Amino acid sequence: MAGDFILLAAVSLLSVFQQCHFTWLVGKSRMKHKIIPPAVSGAPEFDRTFRAQQNCVESYPIFLTVLWTAGWFFNQGLASFLGVLYVFARYKYFHGYVQSAKGRITGFYLNVIILACLIILGAAGIVNSFLDEYLDFNIKKKLQKLF
Amino acid sequence: MAGDFILLAAVSLLSVFQQCHFTWLVGKSRMKHKIIPPAVSGAPEFDRTFRAQQNCVESYPIFLTVLWTAGWFFNQGLASFLGVLYVFARYKYFHGYVQSAKGRITGFYLNVIILACLIILGAAGIVNSFLDEYLDFNIKKKLQKLF
Amino acid sequence: MAGDFILLAAVSLLSVFQQCHFTWLVGKSRMKHKIIPPAVSGAPEFDRTFRAQQNCVESYPIFLTVLWTAGWFFNQGLASFLGVLYVFARYKYFHGYVQSAKGRITGFYLNVIILACLIILGAAGIVNSFLDEYLDFNIKKKLQKLF
Repeated sequence: MAGDFILLAAVSLLSVFQQCHFTWLVGKSRMKHKIIPPAVSGAPEFDRTFRAQQNCVESYPIFLTVLWTAGWFFNQGLASFLGVLYVFARYKYFHGYVQSAKGRITGFYLNVIILACLIILGAAGIVNSFLDEYLDFNIKKKLQKLF
Repeated sequence: MAGDFILLAAVSLLSVFQQCHFTWLVGKSRMKHKIIPPAVSGAPEFDRTFRAQQNCVESYPIFLTVLWTAGWFFNQGLASFLGVLYVFARYKYFHGYVQSAKGRITGFYLNVIILACLIILGAAGIVNSFLDEYLDFNIKKKLQKLF
Repeated sequence: MAGDFILLAAVSLLSVFQQCHFTWLVGKSRMKHKIIPPAVSGAPEFDRTFRAQQNCVESYPIFLTVLWTAGWFFNQGLASFLGVLYVFARYKYFHGYVQSAKGRITGFYLNVIILACLIILGAAGIVNSFLDEYLDFNIKKKLQKLF
């Protein structure tokens, strides 16, 4: 059974690693600009770094939920691939934002597109499972029969 | 097996959608009040909108954890129903908070009550599973036999 | 099957309870220092309490992900034990931080060490499952045969 979601777990662990890395970069920026906790602002670069990380934190549970929903109800390989893309887009977003507020935009839109794809795949998979479970009508199998 | 948690997945996806919507409303409020990132304050209405969303973000992993625990160890239908109520209560909370700080209170208490119910159901389900797994004593089945 | 992750679910519920408790303590500190929402600063003690809770919130999805990955792919008992330690370390962190900014350090390092352990266990379990699934090579079983 573990094989059913091993790729999803691997991508989740990769994203965990990234989240930890971002937190570490905020700490480093704190020291560079001598911003002593509990303060969370003081230097423009630190402010951007902190905001970038906070934004990643906000989206993280959303990402995990749609990654697993899409992976479980639609297709593990495709969801995991989108998950890796998401990690890459977050990388672009974070480092772009640290440079300048404008620098976050490319990564931001990439993230939005990837999340939208995962939501659509998850919703499609759930609708298909609903039809299969309660109306005994499986679109996936019907499509496979047709071709 | 997918049928065991299809309702939970559907409610999770619904809540993901809501979280994305809240984030989008914060962005809209940002533009309305011309608050340029990385700033996160500046206009009272924006401050409330941002705080409302942040509070929803904070509770989101808690909600997902208790939704799935209650759904898996107690009863999927009941947990999913409470999950839908939670989404509705978050709606009330968010839009109430945007109006005024007092406006958040009804939604807030509703959320607390629903989370408490999910925690109790989850705990009851886990205790029952513990007894069943390690002491071979299943309360649920005993109750079903009685009636 | 529920037995495969009942301990993980129990630890997750324990940590949910702790997160709710922290949120409640922030609310209490709000009232003590008369900081009216949506404000999130105003008194040094409140600032520390709020920051402590925010930091716990940030790490929470990371903790849940590595707890379940380590528990599912490596060993449930060990992961759950580390999970309980994590909850204890968070307790130390939070209450230390409320006292003083320096007070958070012991708990903080404990948390980092525990998360690192869970990440390593999770990664080891996933690598082993990959080898088993795709190369039919199971290290765990080989080791068990050797001894």
